[in-house]
Amino acid sequence: MRTVVIDSQGTFQLKRRPEPVAGPGAVVVRVRAAGLNAADLQQARGDYPAPPGWPADVPGLEVAGEVEQVGPGVVEVTPGDRVMALVGGGGHAERIAIPADLLLPVPEYLSWEEAAGFPEAFSTAWDALVTQAGIRAGDRVLVSGAAGGVGTAMVQVAAVSGAHIVASVRRPELHCRVRALTPDRQVDVVTPDEESAYAPYDVIVELVGGENCLRRVALLRSQGKVLVVGVQAGATAPLRMFDLMLARAQLIGTTIRGRSHAEKAILAATVRTSVTPLLAQARLRVPIDTVFPLDRFTDAYDRLAGPGKFGKVILVP
Amino acid sequence: MRTVVIDSQGTFQLKRRPEPVAGPGAVVVRVRAAGLNAADLQQARGDYPAPPGWPADVPGLEVAGEVEQVGPGVVEVTPGDRVMALVGGGGHAERIAIPADLLLPVPEYLSWEEAAGFPEAFSTAWDALVTQAGIRAGDRVLVSGAAGGVGTAMVQVAAVSGAHIVASVRRPELHCRVRALTPDRQVDVVTPDEESAYAPYDVIVELVGGENCLRRVALLRSQGKVLVVGVQAGATAPLRMFDLMLARAQLIGTTIRGRSHAEKAILAATVRTSVTPLLAQARLRVPIDTVFPLDRFTDAYDRLAGPGKFGKVILVP
Repeated sequence: MRTVVIDSQGTFQLKRRPEPVAGPGAVVVRVRAAGLNAADLQQARGDYPAPPGWPADVPGLEVAGEVEQVGPGVVEVTPGDRVMALVGGGGHAERIAIPADLLLPVPEYLSWEEAAGFPEAFSTAWDALVTQAGIRAGDRVLVSGAAGGVGTAMVQVAAVSGAHIVASVRRPELHCRVRALTPDRQVDVVTPDEESAYAPYDVIVELVGGENCLRRVALLRSQGKVLVVGVQAGATAPLRMFDLMLARAQLIGTTIRGRSHAEKAILAATVRTSVTPLLAQARLRVPIDTVFPLDRFTDAYDRLAGPGKFGKVILVP
Repeated sequence: MRTVVIDSQGTFQLKRRPEPVAGPGAVVVRVRAAGLNAADLQQARGDYPAPPGWPADVPGLEVAGEVEQVGPGVVEVTPGDRVMALVGGGGHAERIAIPADLLLPVPEYLSWEEAAGFPEAFSTAWDALVTQAGIRAGDRVLVSGAAGGVGTAMVQVAAVSGAHIVASVRRPELHCRVRALTPDRQVDVVTPDEESAYAPYDVIVELVGGENCLRRVALLRSQGKVLVVGVQAGATAPLRMFDLMLARAQLIGTTIRGRSHAEKAILAATVRTSVTPLLAQARLRVPIDTVFPLDRFTDAYDRLAGPGKFGKVILVP
């Protein structure tokens, strides 16, 4: 089969590899579409190694496609089922082996491209906002970097949770698209310099990083929380600990990649129960930025690395 | 009555002031001893104003003494009762008015000096470790700055909670005293450069601050917590957000001073129910560094500001 491979120089190449086989508890999925994520680029740079048990040199953290082979002991799905999953790597290929307890059903009306863009962003958003921050109706939530894949998911998860949402987006030309994410719920879309005018916040979602990002601690309400989810623009920043103390605030770091398989299966079960039904009802939607065929993988990663995206970049093998 | 006053230059002076009167729900306490805290020095420097409802220019955040007058509506205590309390200021004086719902009973065997050194340190330690961090038996806890008033309380609260304790103390000559705090439970007492050898930790208590203190995030176990309680050595530090994300860690800032009266009364009720009984059973003890009469207040604040203390500095009016 054809697959993207990260070579020893950190360059993406299209190669042929043997087809995967479905071991005990796993299935082989014929990939119909796969999402791109910033972590793919970090992995190529060597900063973010794949977790154990997944292909070490094949990018791709989320896929959608049909079950083609079912390994011993799998009862959850049968060949032909439409599935999607957050995986540890190996998604940018024609086929991938996935433990069955990570699979999510693809709602009937959904395109493969939308399904491929769902698992990473919405698992991350639901886990961070609902499970970890315990977001509640009426909370004031700031999403910084709201136009990206995870950002658009955070805005929507905050909306279904009944929060008041302020979405911070650097480029004004993307503001109307972020505003349109939640037609039945108002979102205040602002540039980063306007964030303080809407303070205080109960929850701030940090998806950007950079030198100044922890200054946002001063925008928190008492006992507010900052969720540190993405730090592409800079992974170290000064923290005024006194602001943190006075607000009695919490700074919570989160990532899914390093979790054990058991924890990932628990997260998948939560998403299956609580989140995919909202997707099936079209109360959550997956905005697609661009779609590329597998042999244009270079253009796809360039688009991912470049500015001005709205939603997910998708590869179609 | 005589009282310490912070003048407009930020200097401590001994002055005469009118006696306080017990308003509705409050009592007047004849102060027999009062604890000193770093916040008294910060208040004198102008960085840490007194909360509303308390004398703005009189230091002193904890006192012990007898109830002398009882205001309308007070049913909790009667004149002559031995009480102690965490207050918003005004403790370094011969008398102080205190809302009755903040009062704690003084166990019979306890000296006034020990009682005066109890409320601030143990309310802070219990609230941070038990209520906020949810410390549990078997947790590995690092207390950085374990020889001070709050530090010695943190070590003891961690001990009664069944935690494994590593106490970090810069001065080797104080190590044996920290080790002796919990005779029935082992404490590993180390210098700061030895902290990493005992990692990972479930909870790290930061009582020192300074440029390097947030590097300790790298010593956390997955889903571990750093409690930021004191930052005297420097209130801003760089945070490697990537370390926070990979550990899925929480950085929790806490202070009691800025809380509402209702929140302080809830904390006092928790301490009355759960903590003073342990003090009465001598399972918690208040180490006293030095005791000064009120007219030697300058020596007392100098001792507080200087190095090498073990336990509390106490003023006796």
